Amino acid sequence: MIKTDILIIGAGPTGLFAVFEAGLLKLKCHLIDALPQAGGQCSEIYPKKPIYDIPGFPEVLAGDLVDNLMEQIKSFQPGFTLGERAETIKKLEDGTFVVTTNKGTEHHAPVVAIAGGLGSFEPRKPLLENLSKFEDNGVAYMIKDPEVYRDKKVIIAGGGDSALDWSIFLADVASQVTLVHRRNEFRGALDSVEKVQELKDKGKLNLITPAEIIGLNGDTQLESVLIRKISDDNEELVLEVDDFIPLFGLSPKLGPIGDWGLEIEKNAIKVDTFDYQTNIPGIYAIGDVNTYPGKLKLILCGFHEATLMCQSAFQKIHPDKKYVMKYTTVGGVSGFDGTKKEAPKAVVKAIE
Amino acid sequence: MIKTDILIIGAGPTGLFAVFEAGLLKLKCHLIDALPQAGGQCSEIYPKKPIYDIPGFPEVLAGDLVDNLMEQIKSFQPGFTLGERAETIKKLEDGTFVVTTNKGTEHHAPVVAIAGGLGSFEPRKPLLENLSKFEDNGVAYMIKDPEVYRDKKVIIAGGGDSALDWSIFLADVASQVTLVHRRNEFRGALDSVEKVQELKDKGKLNLITPAEIIGLNGDTQLESVLIRKISDDNEELVLEVDDFIPLFGLSPKLGPIGDWGLEIEKNAIKVDTFDYQTNIPGIYAIGDVNTYPGKLKLILCGFHEATLMCQSAFQKIHPDKKYVMKYTTVGGVSGFDGTKKEAPKAVVKAIE
Repeated sequence: MIKTDILIIGAGPTGLFAVFEAGLLKLKCHLIDALPQAGGQCSEIYPKKPIYDIPGFPEVLAGDLVDNLMEQIKSFQPGFTLGERAETIKKLEDGTFVVTTNKGTEHHAPVVAIAGGLGSFEPRKPLLENLSKFEDNGVAYMIKDPEVYRDKKVIIAGGGDSALDWSIFLADVASQVTLVHRRNEFRGALDSVEKVQELKDKGKLNLITPAEIIGLNGDTQLESVLIRKISDDNEELVLEVDDFIPLFGLSPKLGPIGDWGLEIEKNAIKVDTFDYQTNIPGIYAIGDVNTYPGKLKLILCGFHEATLMCQSAFQKIHPDKKYVMKYTTVGGVSGFDGTKKEAPKAVVKAIE
Repeated sequence: MIKTDILIIGAGPTGLFAVFEAGLLKLKCHLIDALPQAGGQCSEIYPKKPIYDIPGFPEVLAGDLVDNLMEQIKSFQPGFTLGERAETIKKLEDGTFVVTTNKGTEHHAPVVAIAGGLGSFEPRKPLLENLSKFEDNGVAYMIKDPEVYRDKKVIIAGGGDSALDWSIFLADVASQVTLVHRRNEFRGALDSVEKVQELKDKGKLNLITPAEIIGLNGDTQLESVLIRKISDDNEELVLEVDDFIPLFGLSPKLGPIGDWGLEIEKNAIKVDTFDYQTNIPGIYAIGDVNTYPGKLKLILCGFHEATLMCQSAFQKIHPDKKYVMKYTTVGGVSGFDGTKKEAPKAVVKAIE
């Protein structure tokens, strides 16, 4: 069982910054995220998109913002359970919580902070009869570790950036990459589209368009897919593959958290603006996942909410201690790894 | 009379970021600040100090944060009334406000946002009998435009960074710079102390320590100062100078705003967390100057407050319009100067 002070559900920018504010209060954090990496939407959906409304950044790429936040919290050594979705919560007699993921990983903490953004991102799945049978047996909806596909025959379906980018990446890893899309046109960054064209021209990538996958075959493990060309004669062909990766985008769902007994309004969790606590004492909700009068779903608001939440969490965890806020400009930042960052001290020196 | 949409009192980080959020809503801003430059404390008190708790910046110098914010808001062309203190406010019959500074400059706006930090920074003054007589006639407590001192004989008093840094700077501008301090020891950045030592050794700076200025002479304009050495014999000397600049630090005072009829609690203005509005409709308070349950005096909280304030101000200014928030990642940023920043558009392109 993983134990921590604040268990944060959701490793997007808000959840990550909560680690920093908790760290200033000497509280440890552990984060759970359904996605395979930290950063939430910023990493998964638009890592290369510029954001213009992060205070102090006239422009910052979403992926760079996440990198900066990871650097900012590094010395507070957060733990991560990635690629697993928080599924159930149990309140123990002593008022602490146990949160269990869909893979059965258990986490124990006195405070839970839900920073789940718009929800956990669920992949949009193709409508194929025996799809679920092959999940984890050759079918995957997101790529956690590209090395899994080394020297494998892979078929990717989709027409957006994810499909383009992973086709490009896996062309160097897999023994064979086939990209299938319902149309001839792809929608994505210009250089990605051009790179796919180039790989196709060089014979390093097999492109089948317009076409769709209409069947999956195999005993327990996926062995081949049935592809139908979208044309007058609807030609069908069977392609032997080890892996099928449909990349049709992600859609956010509040998911199992919706059943935790929290007050929900319009798919968001109602909180008090004093400390962003939910109707269940000890469970907070920060960032895009919460709602309150005047709420704006902006990253910068999540930062503020995370900060006030940590103060309240500190009181809950240490009811006997009085915390006096120190400015980082004055007190510096003392990491849990023994590092210390602080302003150069002024000298007191005679001039003769 | 200066006219604007949102009149912001205080040009610190919170006030500056309010310009950005207002700009996204196509509202124009004008800022008043008692200090001679934008940035508030960050520029005046600790421009070279690192801040560690701005989200996304593992470390940023306060002065650099201000520069970044100025860059971020540039395209929204804010107006500035600097070096003047907001003194009086008058509510007109139509519900709009006129704010007048201590220099008589009038500003007219439907919405006023007080972002005054800990208050306006008032210089600590030396106790000298006829000091006020020479204010603006040879005595100044802050340096607004160093060119004023070109080829003048200047005496600076103080033992901290301001006294050191301005002595160094003016050594190249003024015809003569004298630095007086009550002690031999100076407290400041090591390189500033060393630089003053070096200028003194080269004869480019006149240092008198330990000593203090005990008298000012002149008809209407300052002509000379009386200096007493702190030693056994308390030797006194008269030095002819054009300008005397005592740099003994600044202390924040809520100042005239305290008399505007706003609800005050512990030297801060009470606001509602829905939109950070005060008890007077149309007057908001954001950043360190306000208070509410759970309030933390942090820059990142001011950013959030500024953002929610702007939404409310928009409704007040355009009661008939419904604003639909657009993300900058999606809609980009359209400046009032005709510039447009936005993410590169995805292409839709066939791969043959």
